[in-house]
Parts: sequence; structure tokens; C-alpha cells
Amino acid sequence: MVVELISVGTELLLGNIINTNAAYLAEQCASLGLSCYYQSVVGDNAGRLGEQLQTALSRADVVILSGGLGPTQDDLTKEVAAKVIGKQLYLDENTIDRIQRYFETRGIEATENNWKQAMIPEDARVIDNDNGTAPGVIMEENGKTVILLPGPPGELVPMFEKDIRPYLAGRTNEVIYSQTVKICGVGESRVEDAIQDMIAGQSNPSIAPYAKTGEVHLRVTARAENEKGARKLVKPVIKELKARFGNDIYTTEEDTTLEKAVADLLIANDLTVSVAESCTGGMLSARLINVPGISEVYKSGYVTYSNKAKRRLIGVKKSTLDKYGAVSENVAREMAKGTAVLSKADVAVSITGIAGPDGGSEEKPVGLVYVGCFVCGTVTVRRFQFQGNRTKVRESAVSAALTLMRNCILEYYSQVTFGKK
Amino acid sequence: MVVELISVGTELLLGNIINTNAAYLAEQCASLGLSCYYQSVVGDNAGRLGEQLQTALSRADVVILSGGLGPTQDDLTKEVAAKVIGKQLYLDENTIDRIQRYFETRGIEATENNWKQAMIPEDARVIDNDNGTAPGVIMEENGKTVILLPGPPGELVPMFEKDIRPYLAGRTNEVIYSQTVKICGVGESRVEDAIQDMIAGQSNPSIAPYAKTGEVHLRVTARAENEKGARKLVKPVIKELKARFGNDIYTTEEDTTLEKAVADLLIANDLTVSVAESCTGGMLSARLINVPGISEVYKSGYVTYSNKAKRRLIGVKKSTLDKYGAVSENVAREMAKGTAVLSKADVAVSITGIAGPDGGSEEKPVGLVYVGCFVCGTVTVRRFQFQGNRTKVRESAVSAALTLMRNCILEYYSQVTFGKK
Repeated sequence: MVVELISVGTELLLGNIINTNAAYLAEQCASLGLSCYYQSVVGDNAGRLGEQLQTALSRADVVILSGGLGPTQDDLTKEVAAKVIGKQLYLDENTIDRIQRYFETRGIEATENNWKQAMIPEDARVIDNDNGTAPGVIMEENGKTVILLPGPPGELVPMFEKDIRPYLAGRTNEVIYSQTVKICGVGESRVEDAIQDMIAGQSNPSIAPYAKTGEVHLRVTARAENEKGARKLVKPVIKELKARFGNDIYTTEEDTTLEKAVADLLIANDLTVSVAESCTGGMLSARLINVPGISEVYKSGYVTYSNKAKRRLIGVKKSTLDKYGAVSENVAREMAKGTAVLSKADVAVSITGIAGPDGGSEEKPVGLVYVGCFVCGTVTVRRFQFQGNRTKVRESAVSAALTLMRNCILEYYSQVTFGKK
Repeated sequence: MVVELISVGTELLLGNIINTNAAYLAEQCASLGLSCYYQSVVGDNAGRLGEQLQTALSRADVVILSGGLGPTQDDLTKEVAAKVIGKQLYLDENTIDRIQRYFETRGIEATENNWKQAMIPEDARVIDNDNGTAPGVIMEENGKTVILLPGPPGELVPMFEKDIRPYLAGRTNEVIYSQTVKICGVGESRVEDAIQDMIAGQSNPSIAPYAKTGEVHLRVTARAENEKGARKLVKPVIKELKARFGNDIYTTEEDTTLEKAVADLLIANDLTVSVAESCTGGMLSARLINVPGISEVYKSGYVTYSNKAKRRLIGVKKSTLDKYGAVSENVAREMAKGTAVLSKADVAVSITGIAGPDGGSEEKPVGLVYVGCFVCGTVTVRRFQFQGNRTKVRESAVSAALTLMRNCILEYYSQVTFGKK
């Protein structure tokens, strides 16, 4: 079954608000096994909205419109949809009562234009709105279905959960199941190369790569009659991806971020951690502390942007700074070591680099970053050359640091067979 | 001039990501005085993308496509657009060099599929990508314009700012001039109340409020034949807004962020600064260090998430922690004072709070945050109760801290008439 989404609202065309409804509805429809090939946004304009709805009906079985059900003059989704389907509007008693109650319980007077919201297309199914005055509407006509939903997410989402999702589920005979494999420290095109053959031959399940700073996510999606069947199709593909990317996969859990994977690794091994940052100025600590429960292992963080702070707070030697410069392997090493020793942490990570726009040189260009990682006595330092603006360089450095922490800890335990230290 | 937006990507149709690019581009186009009647989303499918582009070209002068310029097989926006316009693709030497350099500076080997990104439609204008490997493309044919932009916001936004916006601005016969008044520490509804009358009567110039965490931006936009005329229309409105919001306006400069306004204030008054953070875990330092040149005044940052770190690093008394708890006015005060004294900074700011989801109580609910600010001997502490999830609470705390720093410094200098200290 094919579904198409139409979001109605001039505020969307003006970019005043972000279209979160479309993302929500799209994800819901995908999880129901519905195919969606088009989404569109039109303003509160009868002519263009009517055309768009006709086009959508010509290529989809179900069209879901959101927005434009408000009480004001320029809310005309219901009127336009009724016209396209060829239905009259009538005043729905039940909806009048609900609107009446809605205002009474809030001690407000309903205004005249509120009754516009009680106008319903004939033969339509009315979906009560528990969080507002605009009811939803389901219209079925010559094998096509048009669903109207209120625009505010606080009304649309609960209405979809309670009534629309079950309605659509009852009309499909397919289920979609997805699982994501999250890879860190490997470039997008390199990941692509490694799975060319798998992507080439893919149909069901399908593999879709998504790149984010320092990470690549591979989403494996399968359709089947039931979830059990879909999971069965996904499983061998995940297994193959694990075989190909091994340790570079930090999770296959939907809600696990890279910082959470690292935090879990620290907590599981009862390793305390401290952080020293120069150019990233606290971004790495901030990401680790995104993770609820990190307080168990997080000891202290130092933002040592100046040479003086590097010396005073975490004991980097003046001679090292003078000889090699603040952005150097040696300083990254002393930062990590000093931080570990001073804060008595099992793991300490350091970042020093040139984020730009200024401060670059021939031999040390903008984007040069050294990341150091101390794990139970051993310090590893990696050199990176990142591209992009100041923000991009700093975000890349943080991802690289999280990846290095993870690798060093895994490395350490692959050698230590008799538990911690 | 009419523009239409097409976002390309199956991940959008599946609802895996929210379409922030469309909102950004729509807002930019509106600010340029371009009319936009349709936005659409299509997957990485040659047939449907081609149809959608043809439809868009039939009703718009300029079509902006974003996404589908990656190195992978399913990235085919460029190929489809070239076909629709009737152009061949050729291998662009300059782009090859750029991609080569991009990988060389990272010490990585470019893979075969990367060269796909150097294929450019003949007669097209290539827009260099400073933050990735996929160049942008501008094609002009029979009075129509097709613009291709990379999908990642970190690449699309800077490219639009640097090259596409000026290009579009040069194509409209009327000039749009905007100036933004940026307000901190005042709620959105209070700001809107204060300018109801101005918004009600507005046409040219128009006033559009945009709320972001802890800030409200008022964008004043005027159209005229030339920039001089537009500026003349905007000027009195800015003057009136300044009269109404006074010191709560931290800038009217487009590229000045709240952290830059605070940094400028510190640098201008030759005030050094240090930071101590608990629940925000480095986010405040990270934002200050967003500002190039902050190194002049930034001394040191401490991430003291645990009570132990609060005591050991910045000298908070055990008795204070025991008596009042880590999230209290007294601890915020001692954190700020201790940080200032230890790091010999003129200004020190502290944040301690409950970001959630756990750790809240009847008397200290999730979202409770204390911010302390030391300025040349005086400590001010403010109590905040923020709403929202962990991230939202932490971001709100950082904005509140920047606003408090700014107010305390301004306050200090309004009293001290004889220069610094």
C-alpha cells in the first residue's frame, strides 16, 4: 500500500518552523510497511492545495494531510479535501459538544469561528481530538483514503497513536523491521567500498548508509508478513556486516550513541575517566556527560586552552611546550599522562589542535589535531588532519577522541586476560 | 522570482532524519524576497526524482535540490538533473584536485567512487565545498535555474551562505535588507507582547521573531529598489526596538553570537575569565571557545561533575556540600569564588544543576539550576527552573550563564566609572 504525505502551512514554506510532523508520520508509515515515495509542503492556498491533493491521489492509495484545520479563515484543508473528494460539509453535533466542553473545562468562551472546526465532510469518519478543538477526519472514496490531521504535534502525535495507526495497521498485511549498525573511525566511502557487493544485490532487506561526523550508520530494513519474519531476514545481514567491520562497529542498538558506547565500556570495566581539552574547549566532556549515569566513572575535566593552563592545571612541562609547541604529539602525551596522574583516573584523554580560522602555519595547518589517550599506564597518541570550519574541526576532533578511547580500552582488555589491571 | 525546494533522500521518506535543510533554505529564500509555493521530498530514485524536477521547473524559476551528491551508488541527483536539463557530465579537473587534497591532508586514500563526485554537468558553474567532497552545482538553461547542494547541513549551510545566497541576491531586481536584533534573558511571549503593536501594523519593513534557547531574535526586513532605500526603512524600527528592550539586546550584528558578545565584553575590558561546570559538563567553556581570539582572556575551565571534583579542583567546602547539597546557591557561590581565586581570573562563572532524567526530588526537581558569576570580587547567584529533557536543560543553563555574565559585567562597569577596578 502506497501512502503520500502533504503538510499544509505557510509557516513551513517560510521556514519559520521545522517539519517534524512529516518525519514522525514517515517513520510511523515505514514501520507499518507502507511505501512512501513523495512528501510535499503547500501553503494555505485552496488552488495549490487542491492540485497537490489530486496529484497525490493519482499516485497513492492513502494521502495524509496535516495542518490547516484551525479555526481561522486561512485554515481550509478540510474544505479543499471535501471538494476534491466531492462531499458536502455538515455541522457535526458530537464535535460541537466536544468543543463546547473543551472551552468550558478551561473557563473560556468559545468564539464564533471555533464552530468552523465542527464542520465535517459527509460519510467521513470523525476522529476525536483529545488535545485540541480540531477533530481528525478519515474519508474513503473509490478505493482511495484521505486522512486529515491537526498540525500541532501535541495533537497530531497522540491522535495518530490512538486512532490512525491502528486504522492503517488494519489495512496492511506487511511489517517493516529495521536495525542499524553504527561504525566509528571509518570514512563513508571506505564503508561503501566494503559493502558494494551487498548493496548492489540488495532488495529485501535493504542497506542504507548514513554519514555523520566521524561515524557511518548502516540501516538494514526488511519487510515481511510479521515482525518475526522481518527480523529473520535482517539477522544474517547484520551478522555479515559484523564480520566485515568487526570492532569498528560500536553498537547495533538504535538509542546508543558513540559517547554512550564509550561510557558503557568505562562503567562495565569499572574504569574512571578524566579529560583535558584545548581546542575543543570542553566539547568532549560535554558529550560524555550527555550520558546519564556517567557520574559513576567521570572524575574531572580540564579546559586548558592556554599554555599556562596546560602547565598549571595538568603539569605539561614548559620545556616540552617550548620545544615542540602546544599542538604536538609530545604535548598531547603529557596532557593525557598529567591528567591521569593528577586526577588518579584509569583513563585520561587529551585533545590539542588548531581549530582555526587563524593560528595555522605551513608545517602545522588549521585542522591539525593530536589526540592522546592514557589507559592504565599506557599512552597512545594519534595525529589527525581535519577539514572544514572551526566548528567542523572541533566536532571531528571529539569524535576521533571517543573512537580512540574506545579502541585503546578494547586493546587493553584484549591483552589483559586477568580482569582489571 | 519563484523558487521551489526539492529534498532528495530515502532517509527523509523513511523519517530517519528531520528535514532541517528545507526549513533553512525556505527561510533564506524568504529573506531574499523569493516566493516559494511548494517543497517536496523524493527518494533516491531516478524516475521519480526526474518527474519531480520537471514538475518543479514547470512552475518555478529556480529549483534548489539538496542531497544525493554523495559518492555512493544511490546518490544520483546530479546525474538526473543533468539528464533533465539535457547536459552531459564531464570529469572536472579542479574538483579532482580538491578531492585529492581533501584525502591527502587526512592521509587517507581516495576510493574509486569518490571520483564520481568530480563529475560535473557541462556549462554548469561548480561551487567548491569547503567542508566535504561533494561540490555544489548551478545550472542555467532557458531562463530556468537548477541549483544542487550537498545534503549534510554542515556542508549545505556554509555553501549557501558563501556562494548561493549572493548568487540569488544578484538575480532579484528588488533588494531585501534585513537586520536582526538579538535579545537574551527575555521569554518569547514577553518579547512578542512588547511588540504586538509593531507586528500588527507591519508590512514593509516586517518584523519576524525567532526563538532559540535563552534568546529571541527579531529579524527586521525591508524591500526597496536599492540597499540604501531598504536600510532607510529598517533604521527607525531598529531604533524603536532598542528603545523598548534596551540592555537586553546583546547585538544587532548578524554574525555576533551571545558567546561572542560576552567574549568581546571581556576582551574590551581586559577581563580574564575561568569557568566551573557541573551538569553542563564543559558546554559553557566550549561555547566561549567557539569564539576565535578568546585565548586572550580565557584562563581555565573545570568540569567538576562529582562532589569530590568540586572540592579537589575548585575548593568547595565539604561542609557546604553536606549542608546544602551540590545543587544549591551556596555551592554555586563557592564554585565561582573558588574558581576565580584559584585561577586568578577577574571573572568566574559556575553552573550546578539537575539535568535529569534522574536525580530530581520534590524540593529539587529536574531542571533546577544555579548559576554563579564572580566579577572582580562580587559574586551573584541566580536560581533557574528549566523545562525539557536533559539536553534542553543543559543548553538553557549555558544560555542563562552567558546572559548572567553579560549582565554582571555591565552592572559592574555601570558602577565603576574610573576604569577597570
